[in-house]
Amino acid sequence: MSEFKPGLDGVIATDTSISYLDVDNEEIVIRGYDLIELAGAKSYPEVAYLVINGELPNHKQLTNFEKILLDDSTFPNEAYEVLKLAPKKSMVMDIIRTGISFLAGFNDESDLMNTSHESNLNKGIRLIAEVAILTANSHRILNNQNIIKPDNSKSFAENFLGMILGHKISSKEAEIFDKILICYIEHEMPNSTFAARIIGSTLSDMYGAFVGGISSLKGPLHGGANEAAIHMLLDIESKGGSKIADKYIMDKLNNKERIMGFGHRVYMKKYDPRALFLRDYIAELESNIQNGKELHKIYKIVEEVMAREKGLYPNTDYPIALLFYLLGIPIPLYTPIFFASRTSGLIAHVIEQHNNNRLFRPRVLYTGPRGLKL
Amino acid sequence: MSEFKPGLDGVIATDTSISYLDVDNEEIVIRGYDLIELAGAKSYPEVAYLVINGELPNHKQLTNFEKILLDDSTFPNEAYEVLKLAPKKSMVMDIIRTGISFLAGFNDESDLMNTSHESNLNKGIRLIAEVAILTANSHRILNNQNIIKPDNSKSFAENFLGMILGHKISSKEAEIFDKILICYIEHEMPNSTFAARIIGSTLSDMYGAFVGGISSLKGPLHGGANEAAIHMLLDIESKGGSKIADKYIMDKLNNKERIMGFGHRVYMKKYDPRALFLRDYIAELESNIQNGKELHKIYKIVEEVMAREKGLYPNTDYPIALLFYLLGIPIPLYTPIFFASRTSGLIAHVIEQHNNNRLFRPRVLYTGPRGLKL
Repeated sequence: MSEFKPGLDGVIATDTSISYLDVDNEEIVIRGYDLIELAGAKSYPEVAYLVINGELPNHKQLTNFEKILLDDSTFPNEAYEVLKLAPKKSMVMDIIRTGISFLAGFNDESDLMNTSHESNLNKGIRLIAEVAILTANSHRILNNQNIIKPDNSKSFAENFLGMILGHKISSKEAEIFDKILICYIEHEMPNSTFAARIIGSTLSDMYGAFVGGISSLKGPLHGGANEAAIHMLLDIESKGGSKIADKYIMDKLNNKERIMGFGHRVYMKKYDPRALFLRDYIAELESNIQNGKELHKIYKIVEEVMAREKGLYPNTDYPIALLFYLLGIPIPLYTPIFFASRTSGLIAHVIEQHNNNRLFRPRVLYTGPRGLKL
Repeated sequence: MSEFKPGLDGVIATDTSISYLDVDNEEIVIRGYDLIELAGAKSYPEVAYLVINGELPNHKQLTNFEKILLDDSTFPNEAYEVLKLAPKKSMVMDIIRTGISFLAGFNDESDLMNTSHESNLNKGIRLIAEVAILTANSHRILNNQNIIKPDNSKSFAENFLGMILGHKISSKEAEIFDKILICYIEHEMPNSTFAARIIGSTLSDMYGAFVGGISSLKGPLHGGANEAAIHMLLDIESKGGSKIADKYIMDKLNNKERIMGFGHRVYMKKYDPRALFLRDYIAELESNIQNGKELHKIYKIVEEVMAREKGLYPNTDYPIALLFYLLGIPIPLYTPIFFASRTSGLIAHVIEQHNNNRLFRPRVLYTGPRGLKL
């Protein structure tokens, strides 16, 4: 057996043609394209189609695809009932997970367990729509707000943000939200994608892979960073704002506390290309709220201190945290929205796993006792 | 980066002191003990305590532990409501998963996300009781039967089997069911345990790890083998019985069809020690049902043919499939009961992962295109 690498650090777990982090060239490769080029020129549904199908859609393909992403005709009312039964103190990620798990039962078993490319594609694309509905309405129901169903006259991003906020969205806001969704869509083999593929490798179904993925992404070491980052920026603001931002971070660093939104297991000491792309949108939204300019100032100081002191640069969660805040999105939805975007990547990975499957079944380094007798 | 091993075959994914498959010596090591010795001498709660805590319980520890395993005082009525909302065509594994996911919301967030040894232990042990309740009652509700709550005057095995069957259990039946639960309790690093540890490594919570584990175990390449095995034995019986069993298997082998319940990725061409231990109980139950003796005859012929033709021996799912059938357990519950037993192993692994955590984040071998331009 091979040498033990904790966390499978540097271990190749699968082959894939979906995406690749080319750290040397600072490129996130998505089906051969540079993710940042895609984010600059394409919409979330176009990139989702590419991630899932391996090529960009033509006009007709895109129209059909967008229609499914806004279709709630198969979304059962019982799912809303389940959301309502959850305690009001529930975490949004848990309610969405319960909802996804529950929706599995609305498929016929033969189709649910069918791991063919076509069946996976049908279930998967429907799940993009369903996870967006669950995401927006989980939070709405927890907060005793009305349920909002998709409006298929809108774009995916405009509709999704509209379901979350419950009011009209400007085209600028919809555009920036769309860019954020693209940045979160797919990222090689993070823990949640790995979890989904491992589950898929037992020939378990798309829903099972999704609940595994969302359980992983809920973890503070994975999807929680965007929420932690905004809490930090708000904490700095409340304790004196941009004037004390440098000292605030220095104190944290001296206490060996981790600053969320900086550094990345794979990128190490480089700039996450997504963070570089998204940070320019902050200025466009900073007038959205009263304290927007001040938060932006704090944002830049923290970034400078981290580069100066640790040589660490923002990952994508850092600008997204502030952009979500400027958009007025409730903080408990930051990680769920990350997951909702990532559904497209998960679909692609489950399909790829099922199309060329090998059960994941590693071994262990046993460090316990031997030969004990009763 | 290291060489790519599909399915992480032979790759060491973690260190652990919980269990180890010593294939050379045909021993399943559980915290230093031989699982088969434990199964011969101890009860499921005793072995569960050992798996989770690393040592066998004294009398007082066992009494306290058994009490929690039969305690439903924190099981919310809303969970039964969720089970009732599921479509009647739902798969039992999916409903149990929804139930586990739903129960997460009944914890306070600070305790839910607390990954300390003590908090994990509290949540985990309570989940053993809750998964047994969900397992028995999911099937009961799907079949319009009454809900049965735990009876804490009984042993864990007698109560669990009683909730499933809805009638009185003989002491022989309770004993054999208990042995089966022990055989399923823990088995090194199968896919479901791996999935649970991966999810746990993001510092996601016990419930998240459990829903990942059950999603994995649902897959036909993992937990589904016991159900597939009994369907095969019944198929042989309906098509001519023991007289045609040899030819039935030969035809399948000639068609390159897989015979479920034989062979194992790790054991390869050896006898699973659990299968060897459990097969002797079949004779004790074969008079339980009218066709029991004939099914036992078919069972033995299939085993002979597989050894003769392929050098493959039964894994634990093969005798358990027939034992479950002789006990009168509905077939859709075979895999869920496997999971209900395995909860103890999963708890131990999540605790161990959290106590010495390293985020799982492997890399990929990228085989797709590069340098595409928009």
